[in-house]
Amino acid sequence: MQTAIVLFDRFTALDAVGPYEILGRLPGAETVFVAEQAGPVRNDTGSLALVADRTLADVPAPDLVVVPGGPGQTPQMENETLLDWLRTADATSTWTTSVCTGSLLLAAAGLLQGRRATSHWLALSHLGRFGAEPTGERVVTDGKYVTAAGVSSGIDMGLTLLGRIAGDDHARAVQLLTEYDPQPPYDAGSPQKAPAHLVEEFRGKSRFILT
Amino acid sequence: MQTAIVLFDRFTALDAVGPYEILGRLPGAETVFVAEQAGPVRNDTGSLALVADRTLADVPAPDLVVVPGGPGQTPQMENETLLDWLRTADATSTWTTSVCTGSLLLAAAGLLQGRRATSHWLALSHLGRFGAEPTGERVVTDGKYVTAAGVSSGIDMGLTLLGRIAGDDHARAVQLLTEYDPQPPYDAGSPQKAPAHLVEEFRGKSRFILT
Repeated sequence: MQTAIVLFDRFTALDAVGPYEILGRLPGAETVFVAEQAGPVRNDTGSLALVADRTLADVPAPDLVVVPGGPGQTPQMENETLLDWLRTADATSTWTTSVCTGSLLLAAAGLLQGRRATSHWLALSHLGRFGAEPTGERVVTDGKYVTAAGVSSGIDMGLTLLGRIAGDDHARAVQLLTEYDPQPPYDAGSPQKAPAHLVEEFRGKSRFILT
Repeated sequence: MQTAIVLFDRFTALDAVGPYEILGRLPGAETVFVAEQAGPVRNDTGSLALVADRTLADVPAPDLVVVPGGPGQTPQMENETLLDWLRTADATSTWTTSVCTGSLLLAAAGLLQGRRATSHWLALSHLGRFGAEPTGERVVTDGKYVTAAGVSSGIDMGLTLLGRIAGDDHARAVQLLTEYDPQPPYDAGSPQKAPAHLVEEFRGKSRFILT
């Protein structure tokens, strides 16, 4: 089994590394970071670089595709090289997945037509433009398409998928090994729970945050 | 304000990227990944490389130090270059922090003498050898020393610290932006909650897992 995690300029680091840390522990699987060009790829703030070990062309038929999001997703919506790769990889993948605004890339590639899907809460409404049916759930599975909400939700997506692929016991083992027993010191992780002034502030700036 | 996140061969990726994603959003702060040598540093499974943009020597006096763990921590316990850097950085830091077995490196550097601290649940008992007082809490603050439990706990540590540094409202804003509203599909994230057979299996293999 081969897992490909897609990188592009100005991706959000945790979008990629959250599911990586979970799904990279699939027994007997190869996990590879891919990008249009091999080499370091900078994240949204510019202070982190993850290495793409292989090019998209090197990895044409992964079994599992993971597409992170981040502000850099916007220009990728018109990158036909990436969109073509997504369509080709999806044609033979067992699972096609995304975190955060990565779902907009799957949608732009035409892969979420008529599918239930999610995205970062600030980007959710854009999914409909591409024929997807947005839902506010944290992890959404529709057939082989698994989409996760913003940034940190990729960890929950990873565990959900790991359970489907390797069984509940293996998923629980990885949860224990990564000590994923979350205890956030605040309860502001969704627009339903956060103080209204913060939600409004981000909605007002969403064009700036997401692009 | 300058934050230094330390990398070393065979670190655990989420240990570093969890707190990075939160603390890297401190307004006006510089965040830099450092290692003994600059360049790509491979993680515990070898399938991920994060770039250290600066050497330890380049960044002698960060305000905030973050030390991840991972199987590669064991050989670092005798790396006097790293331990010396930790002592020097700690002499002027405002906060000295760790995730997972990173606390064993702080302890080996002599920084946790008489301090309450935590670590990955499989490594917790080793803290006592260095004069620290182990506690099973997920995030432990003792003076300027903040230690977190295994792997994913660095996200909770990051939010806790962000609240202390930038205020509750800023921490809540970052929690909302990273949509950190965890919904794990299983409840097996600690040795108290996981099935007993998994806990026993890992305890039996802990030498293999941690080194």
